[in-house]
Amino acid sequence: MTPAEQYAYLTKGCVDVVREADLRRKLGSSADGGRPLHVKVGFDPTAPDLHLGHTVLIRKMKHFQDLGHTVVFVIGDFTALIGDPTGRSKARPPLTREEIDANAETYKAQVFKLLDPDRTVVDFNSRWLGALGSEGLIRLAARYSVAQMLERREFRQRYDEGRSITIHEFLYPLAQAYDSVYLETDVELGGTDQLFNLNVGRDIMPSYDLPAQVVLTTPLLVGLDGVEKMSKSANNYVGITEPPDDMFGKLMSIADPLMWPYYTLLTDRSEPEIAALRDAVDSGARHPKAVKAELAATVVADFHGTTAARDAAAEFERRFARKSLPSAVPEHPVAIPADGLRLTRLLVDCGFAPSAAAAGRLIRQGSVRLDGERVEDPWRSVAPAATPFVLQVGKRRVARVVPAPAAADSPPADSPAFPG
Amino acid sequence: MTPAEQYAYLTKGCVDVVREADLRRKLGSSADGGRPLHVKVGFDPTAPDLHLGHTVLIRKMKHFQDLGHTVVFVIGDFTALIGDPTGRSKARPPLTREEIDANAETYKAQVFKLLDPDRTVVDFNSRWLGALGSEGLIRLAARYSVAQMLERREFRQRYDEGRSITIHEFLYPLAQAYDSVYLETDVELGGTDQLFNLNVGRDIMPSYDLPAQVVLTTPLLVGLDGVEKMSKSANNYVGITEPPDDMFGKLMSIADPLMWPYYTLLTDRSEPEIAALRDAVDSGARHPKAVKAELAATVVADFHGTTAARDAAAEFERRFARKSLPSAVPEHPVAIPADGLRLTRLLVDCGFAPSAAAAGRLIRQGSVRLDGERVEDPWRSVAPAATPFVLQVGKRRVARVVPAPAAADSPPADSPAFPG
Repeated sequence: MTPAEQYAYLTKGCVDVVREADLRRKLGSSADGGRPLHVKVGFDPTAPDLHLGHTVLIRKMKHFQDLGHTVVFVIGDFTALIGDPTGRSKARPPLTREEIDANAETYKAQVFKLLDPDRTVVDFNSRWLGALGSEGLIRLAARYSVAQMLERREFRQRYDEGRSITIHEFLYPLAQAYDSVYLETDVELGGTDQLFNLNVGRDIMPSYDLPAQVVLTTPLLVGLDGVEKMSKSANNYVGITEPPDDMFGKLMSIADPLMWPYYTLLTDRSEPEIAALRDAVDSGARHPKAVKAELAATVVADFHGTTAARDAAAEFERRFARKSLPSAVPEHPVAIPADGLRLTRLLVDCGFAPSAAAAGRLIRQGSVRLDGERVEDPWRSVAPAATPFVLQVGKRRVARVVPAPAAADSPPADSPAFPG
Repeated sequence: MTPAEQYAYLTKGCVDVVREADLRRKLGSSADGGRPLHVKVGFDPTAPDLHLGHTVLIRKMKHFQDLGHTVVFVIGDFTALIGDPTGRSKARPPLTREEIDANAETYKAQVFKLLDPDRTVVDFNSRWLGALGSEGLIRLAARYSVAQMLERREFRQRYDEGRSITIHEFLYPLAQAYDSVYLETDVELGGTDQLFNLNVGRDIMPSYDLPAQVVLTTPLLVGLDGVEKMSKSANNYVGITEPPDDMFGKLMSIADPLMWPYYTLLTDRSEPEIAALRDAVDSGARHPKAVKAELAATVVADFHGTTAARDAAAEFERRFARKSLPSAVPEHPVAIPADGLRLTRLLVDCGFAPSAAAAGRLIRQGSVRLDGERVEDPWRSVAPAATPFVLQVGKRRVARVVPAPAAADSPPADSPAFPG
């Protein structure tokens, strides 16, 4: 790729590029001189269980790596070892060295699904921030002003509202900035919420006789609901260790327009490629569901390989597209008396309810489905001549019921309980 | 002394006592349990040439020491080693270890004129602040808020006026406060301009499970002019290494009302004793000059001993009170022709001017005095029958001229140059 093509590819989907001219120049001189850019990303080693929202940033690292640049993955263990020294935040207890190392290993195992381990440098910032000493930290703190720090929106708001900002909170962005000094970073990547911190690195580097790093931020990924940002707490996420079928199914559940940002942020497709897909859908040349399935298969392949992705696509077709049932649903043969069998009784028989009364409550709550249709009548019965059908309670309890006429001498069914 | 008497003596002349009840309690429990209080004073090792203004604080240390308490003299070498890391202040270049040690020795030599060396602990705060490390400094910075720091008047003004405050400036008061934590200080002394910094120590100590230190501030000493604070730059000071005669003379030059704050801040007299002196002056029982001479002798004795003080007092009486001359002025016998000797010629003869022309310029500048009277006529001559007189140029060049008639056969004097 030419530097101009690199620029377009690397800034795809990004929110901030500080500054465009600097990045173009760095890409140009890297292409001329052959020196790869040093691309730094910092990670907090406290939450190693990643979802697709986290992969937006990791994929941006991958794009730099794909173009031959050097990616440095900085584990922010220095601040993690300290935690929140005020003790006010329960979310930031200090971590032990062992916990940090274990989290780092988990991190690596996850990010190396996207990144090339052989071309990724993993480092720990306690190495240089610890060595800085109290004296070095004071010298570092001399490079930034209180007024500059209070420009950060969060600090400004807290200050204006009279909420306390402790002074060590001013030191953390500087410590992160020093990572860039130590590593002589050319480009730092981060989420858009990190823009201020990344710019602190940019600001202080010239005072260390280094060129200011370029700052590139990626957006927050919208969750499956299309409304809130993807997060565990909003339960609108796809974890990167989830099984292929779950991943595929979750991705197929998104609204069609959400495909486009997902294509941009969760795949390596270039903007022109994505625009072509979009045109195909808009003109009716391709069905949106097929294009969405292509997205889902691409994402699943990243984490589970192409075979698993193809299998997941086929399974999805069976389960949902043809409205057929999962192939793994257990069969449940049932002998049905000539006058029929109460559904409440059948639910107990399948092990889906502890009593007919409880089964009646399930029906009236709307939790019970026959062949996907909600049952509304708690007195409903099943006839002996019925064809096999799928009985479901909620999402988890599913059985394929295969009715057969009961033998005439079979004991009478228990008198049906009054349901509910 | 009872704790109440100690309290009165120790707070004599002080500006702030934070808080009175705490100091009374600490003095009480020290008297009960016999444990001496830890009294800390910090000094910046950059300006070791002390004047009487600095002794106000050192004398307050002495008073604690006289009452049996332990005085810790903290040399702030940690920040001195760093200097001003922004490089903007030429007044705060970093010092080398050797410079700091040399300054510390000079300091000690000077303060031990007042303090008892055997009961004074001298320590260097780099010992514990260096060991704190970057991590420890962050934990320290977590104990104070940005808003608290901006309450300091100097910071507030700079912030409001848009002048830069760099973040390390917030760390220095905390570093000084940590001295008190490390030393488990009971009382910290300082100049009134240090009140904020001393209170930071008071504020953070409880978070280290230590009782808050008492803060005691001494005022700035007014200089000899009675207007500005005593300082080298205002040239209204008395250096503590100045010779006894100079010290005595300078102290006698102050206006009478300035005696009373000087008695309070520069001697060990108690307030009742000083009030009695003042009454004696007010009632006419004692002459103010005699009471001032007593002050001057007391101060000189502190730095040069009582014999030197007595000698200085006697010398002062000779030189100024009786308007006689300093006994050490060299005699200069001069043969004067019958028609007199030009003063310009005499000045050359005494070695006070390189030429008669230069001597004439000195007269016209008003620099030449005969018996203390300024000479205005550059053509003035001295008669052979004149009695001995004192010839002065400026303050430094003084001679007692003893005229004698020239022998008749002596060669004629050079023809006098046209003066100037």
